[in-house]
Amino acid sequence: MSHNRFGKVLSVTTFGESHGPAIGCVIDGVPPGLPISAEEFEPDLTRRATGRSRHTSQRREADVVEILSGVYQGRTTGTALALLIRNVDARSKDYANIEAQFRPGHADYTYWQKYGIRDPNGGGRSSARETTMRVAAGVIAKKWLATHHSITVRGHLDQLGPLKPRQFEWSSVEDNPFFWPDASMVGELETYMDDLRKSGDSIGAGVTVVAEGVPTGWGEPIYGKLDAEIAAAMMSINAVKGVEIGAGFASITQHGTEHRDEMTPEGFLGNQAGGILGGISTGQTVRVRVAIKPTSSLRLPGRGIDANGAAVDIVTKGRHDPCVGIRATPIAEAMLALVLMDQALRHRAQCGDVGAVSPRIPAGIDLF
Amino acid sequence: MSHNRFGKVLSVTTFGESHGPAIGCVIDGVPPGLPISAEEFEPDLTRRATGRSRHTSQRREADVVEILSGVYQGRTTGTALALLIRNVDARSKDYANIEAQFRPGHADYTYWQKYGIRDPNGGGRSSARETTMRVAAGVIAKKWLATHHSITVRGHLDQLGPLKPRQFEWSSVEDNPFFWPDASMVGELETYMDDLRKSGDSIGAGVTVVAEGVPTGWGEPIYGKLDAEIAAAMMSINAVKGVEIGAGFASITQHGTEHRDEMTPEGFLGNQAGGILGGISTGQTVRVRVAIKPTSSLRLPGRGIDANGAAVDIVTKGRHDPCVGIRATPIAEAMLALVLMDQALRHRAQCGDVGAVSPRIPAGIDLF
Amino acid sequence: MSHNRFGKVLSVTTFGESHGPAIGCVIDGVPPGLPISAEEFEPDLTRRATGRSRHTSQRREADVVEILSGVYQGRTTGTALALLIRNVDARSKDYANIEAQFRPGHADYTYWQKYGIRDPNGGGRSSARETTMRVAAGVIAKKWLATHHSITVRGHLDQLGPLKPRQFEWSSVEDNPFFWPDASMVGELETYMDDLRKSGDSIGAGVTVVAEGVPTGWGEPIYGKLDAEIAAAMMSINAVKGVEIGAGFASITQHGTEHRDEMTPEGFLGNQAGGILGGISTGQTVRVRVAIKPTSSLRLPGRGIDANGAAVDIVTKGRHDPCVGIRATPIAEAMLALVLMDQALRHRAQCGDVGAVSPRIPAGIDLF
Amino acid sequence: MSHNRFGKVLSVTTFGESHGPAIGCVIDGVPPGLPISAEEFEPDLTRRATGRSRHTSQRREADVVEILSGVYQGRTTGTALALLIRNVDARSKDYANIEAQFRPGHADYTYWQKYGIRDPNGGGRSSARETTMRVAAGVIAKKWLATHHSITVRGHLDQLGPLKPRQFEWSSVEDNPFFWPDASMVGELETYMDDLRKSGDSIGAGVTVVAEGVPTGWGEPIYGKLDAEIAAAMMSINAVKGVEIGAGFASITQHGTEHRDEMTPEGFLGNQAGGILGGISTGQTVRVRVAIKPTSSLRLPGRGIDANGAAVDIVTKGRHDPCVGIRATPIAEAMLALVLMDQALRHRAQCGDVGAVSPRIPAGIDLF
Repeated sequence: MSHNRFGKVLSVTTFGESHGPAIGCVIDGVPPGLPISAEEFEPDLTRRATGRSRHTSQRREADVVEILSGVYQGRTTGTALALLIRNVDARSKDYANIEAQFRPGHADYTYWQKYGIRDPNGGGRSSARETTMRVAAGVIAKKWLATHHSITVRGHLDQLGPLKPRQFEWSSVEDNPFFWPDASMVGELETYMDDLRKSGDSIGAGVTVVAEGVPTGWGEPIYGKLDAEIAAAMMSINAVKGVEIGAGFASITQHGTEHRDEMTPEGFLGNQAGGILGGISTGQTVRVRVAIKPTSSLRLPGRGIDANGAAVDIVTKGRHDPCVGIRATPIAEAMLALVLMDQALRHRAQCGDVGAVSPRIPAGIDLF
Repeated sequence: MSHNRFGKVLSVTTFGESHGPAIGCVIDGVPPGLPISAEEFEPDLTRRATGRSRHTSQRREADVVEILSGVYQGRTTGTALALLIRNVDARSKDYANIEAQFRPGHADYTYWQKYGIRDPNGGGRSSARETTMRVAAGVIAKKWLATHHSITVRGHLDQLGPLKPRQFEWSSVEDNPFFWPDASMVGELETYMDDLRKSGDSIGAGVTVVAEGVPTGWGEPIYGKLDAEIAAAMMSINAVKGVEIGAGFASITQHGTEHRDEMTPEGFLGNQAGGILGGISTGQTVRVRVAIKPTSSLRLPGRGIDANGAAVDIVTKGRHDPCVGIRATPIAEAMLALVLMDQALRHRAQCGDVGAVSPRIPAGIDLF
Repeated sequence: MSHNRFGKVLSVTTFGESHGPAIGCVIDGVPPGLPISAEEFEPDLTRRATGRSRHTSQRREADVVEILSGVYQGRTTGTALALLIRNVDARSKDYANIEAQFRPGHADYTYWQKYGIRDPNGGGRSSARETTMRVAAGVIAKKWLATHHSITVRGHLDQLGPLKPRQFEWSSVEDNPFFWPDASMVGELETYMDDLRKSGDSIGAGVTVVAEGVPTGWGEPIYGKLDAEIAAAMMSINAVKGVEIGAGFASITQHGTEHRDEMTPEGFLGNQAGGILGGISTGQTVRVRVAIKPTSSLRLPGRGIDANGAAVDIVTKGRHDPCVGIRATPIAEAMLALVLMDQALRHRAQCGDVGAVSPRIPAGIDLF
Repeated sequence: MSHNRFGKVLSVTTFGESHGPAIGCVIDGVPPGLPISAEEFEPDLTRRATGRSRHTSQRREADVVEILSGVYQGRTTGTALALLIRNVDARSKDYANIEAQFRPGHADYTYWQKYGIRDPNGGGRSSARETTMRVAAGVIAKKWLATHHSITVRGHLDQLGPLKPRQFEWSSVEDNPFFWPDASMVGELETYMDDLRKSGDSIGAGVTVVAEGVPTGWGEPIYGKLDAEIAAAMMSINAVKGVEIGAGFASITQHGTEHRDEMTPEGFLGNQAGGILGGISTGQTVRVRVAIKPTSSLRLPGRGIDANGAAVDIVTKGRHDPCVGIRATPIAEAMLALVLMDQALRHRAQCGDVGAVSPRIPAGIDLF
């Protein structure tokens, strides 16, 4: 079962509520000997954290990671690796008025219906606060993939409501609070977000994540396909409503001659496949895109119901992101990295006897 | 692990190659007492089968199901339910010329790279032939969902390359070989497909599947979310490159006021969520859409490589569908039904003690 | 996978090293609405704790449980329930001399061989300290089984080296530090243990655990049999070398007429089966016995090897139990309770549609 | 979940009833490239088969294995490997009289109570017929362990009711129908069994299985310990009531100085541990013993109940083994081999990065 756990050989179990005493995770199956320190979690947690700019929630997440087990003298031991982050700056009083209300577009109603009980503070377990631990776990996966397979996992916002990048540079992505690959548009984005925040409304976004350097052969058909597990991992992120690999939904209007990435001894001639064929990595860049809905927590009143089933106008007072998609980039990266590392370990479990297979061609052209 | 198996309490393990002696599956965790006969598999297998019209592969799949275990005197016993279908009309000689070649856009290369060995006949395990057993297993899930929860799972093609329905009627879907909801367009589709077939090329498609009547409360956050498992199930189907729930990718450009489905005592005022919030069913129709790429098996030559790594022009001679998306409808239905039934059983495992929860509102309006 | 996790619908993931900052667990799949407080963990943790008498390790385990998540206003919410216990009184310096040595009869050598790295302090992850979290998790299982099914899970020492109880009274078990069911022998046991401690040697023990009131029907053949899962759960406890159900190894010399528990409308005429037939509970008392080896941590020198592979005489200085079996009683109870609760939830998942089945007979006679 | 499936990376799913059309299994996760043919299953299936001597059931099990998938040109492909055996010589009429009766000591009553329905013919799914597929799957595991790790898995009867071997020779085991290691006692055993058969009663037995050549490092603490998984695998075999590793229950009366296997650079000085410490293999012979109860299917009448709950004297007419333990030897071997192979694959998944670890000592002395 997998209520609070994902992954097979490398698995991550998370726990914790938005406004509870702490959040944490247990990472199981980590190969022994990997150097890791508490400080290494900081950069990605900061990238994900709220309060970094005026465009995200003003909750200050300190997010200091404590390593509780699984590391000895700075290296992983192969046993359960547990991480803990104490919650601070949790203002439960912000939620006092919604304890007896079900907000539209939120998990309030569904948790209540499923469990007959719910923790209303900050959304409890359904809060995006939980994704902090995904990012933390992803740090380990990114490091292992980098050091053992020279794989880079990175991502960027590819759409903010109606806005799309007009040019693309990886080097710009980390230089602005939007993970935006077009430096020339940052001012435009800031204006858009300022206007949006003033309006009280929110907006959706698109995020692209890629893994460069993935070798051929990862993925376990038929039901442990690499793309299937990526899809589940991405869709499990709060607010994600769609996932596509490579050409994705654009493939609906493509012809076979256009979609099939031809192969030559010099490499692939395209990457419509997004680096995955038959559920197995091709050796090309793995390309994933997710659609993130606009948050439903708004200052603008929305019709909901209260605990008695009566109609009620609901206004959200907590600190929320007008575009949750912005902070989704490091989360999606983490999930991609974790799926890849798990698949890497599983691949060598079954296929560790398979030697070098020829012919093998280079990644080739990454256009799609 | 899940190479050839999916589902938790209700699980399906499939086996068999396209041109091997047989394909089959083991369905585990089926509740006892469900009436089932071999004949009940026929309708959905026929819907999925090739050779039904000139618009799909001309391979004739007889697909006679033999129940090997798990049924006694016409009712399920709760033990492993095994189904077997012998392969007939498998023309392996069609594939003789591609045994030493890797077709572009196919799993030939990736299977070879992963395993160092592959069965080239008809694509072996990577063939869509495997989906036959998903459809067979789905028959049991559909029946259980219908008899125990009055749930209907059904689907239709929503796009065939550039063509979209201009009107929508469920009643039309089963009256044409395209699962098309607009009877007035069938002639247009036939012409399009005839032209396509003559051209030797193929085209992508979009398929929508829905489950009507799903109660609130199914789905297991955080990592067994209903939408996450649907995403994995859909993405595991051959040729699927994208999955969306409810508004899906359209939510990128939506505002929160537009996307959040407001709630009143009379029901929801929309279904942008696609029937799922926080990974749990809302009581509305569960709406899923998948993007299916155009098949890469074409009469038109494509650049590939051979076993020596040399460049080669590849022409596929086997019998293939110019639009694999057409037959994907019953497959996607089956996967949705199987995920829902598994979640239903898991929900009562954990939450069987939870009584009727109030307030509960009707499904309301299904617009999105 | 299951490195640090067991259970299916109800699962427990533990983490933490003996001398690390903390130990903890995540309990997943707990039904919502169960009242639970941090204080309720105390009694069983105290029963398991070291330092309770002079006959167990003198390490003082405070074992104060902090509930980190999954409980709201005193009741479980159905989300991940996390528990944390900070380690105190951990004297790592006791282990300084064995850091570069492999103790005979310990996991030092095997952890080193498997992982190439190990935390030597107090045995690290291989320490019985880990079982604290099993006992904590077991508190929840015991409570649910008691309140929802009127099941009692309890245990006692049934053998301490050569000593066996001469009479049996449940009421005596909790009145002495040996979990011994024969009050008349407590003085004898104390003398035996005092002599043993002085000798510097250790001794094995037998523990019996039972579950009374288990309904018929729990267990999932063929590979999720109740007895198979009990066997795994027990054998996973440190120092356990054998598990038997009902007549166990005595059944080797039994005839079928002697072993088969005959049935009458008034109930079973015996319980050689230990309450399980075909992997499913019969409605009788579930009876399990485990064999626990003598600890290998002794003041008496033993031949081992050091990090250079050289022969070395090893003397253990840490605080250890001369009979680890004594404290195993609450641990074995916890594991039995957890397996039963998991099976109960799984049974209703698959068989929740099955109504009252007749004929059903009483438990009858529990002799064996 | 694991109703009809066991194993993690290498998993086996079995199906089929005793008197249904067929039994079979799906073996998932088999490394690619392993040569295998249908003929290779014969020797072990014959060892397990009934009808081999007058001392086992007279049902003739032809047991011809058909490979349905997962093998191409004589080698495994890494995809689902499915095996099928058609049932022949199934005399369901032998069971007509017990359809409405619950036999004492059998799973009839518990299956009925759990599922509300059961297939009474030959015990349906609860029959030892199912173990045929374990043996078949075990053939693959034995072959892989032998060819990749030079491991030998073998077993023998170590007790038949009151009789124990007076001397031990592996070479004798396969030369008599009792898997008995003392050739001088075969006449004695034959007389014992003939007398037993005439009496109409049955007897229990003990079986020992060992794996020689297992490297250090296999096993996944804390809950995937090698011994824990062996315990579950053995206890899942029909009629097994107890499992012990190494010294097992004898360790109860051992002192630590006696039990702890001391280590020297030349190897271990004993093997009380049975080759496993801390749940991880030590490099010594893995030693397992199981207790097998006497069959409850007897010509001698036993008290049972009928479908109306009335008392009834039950006489079993089917063909049964007076000592089911005899044929359990190859089954226990198969289960041990399957657990070891699964653990081997899992070990390299997580610890494939760990190079040669020193110091490593030889297996040494296997006394216990």
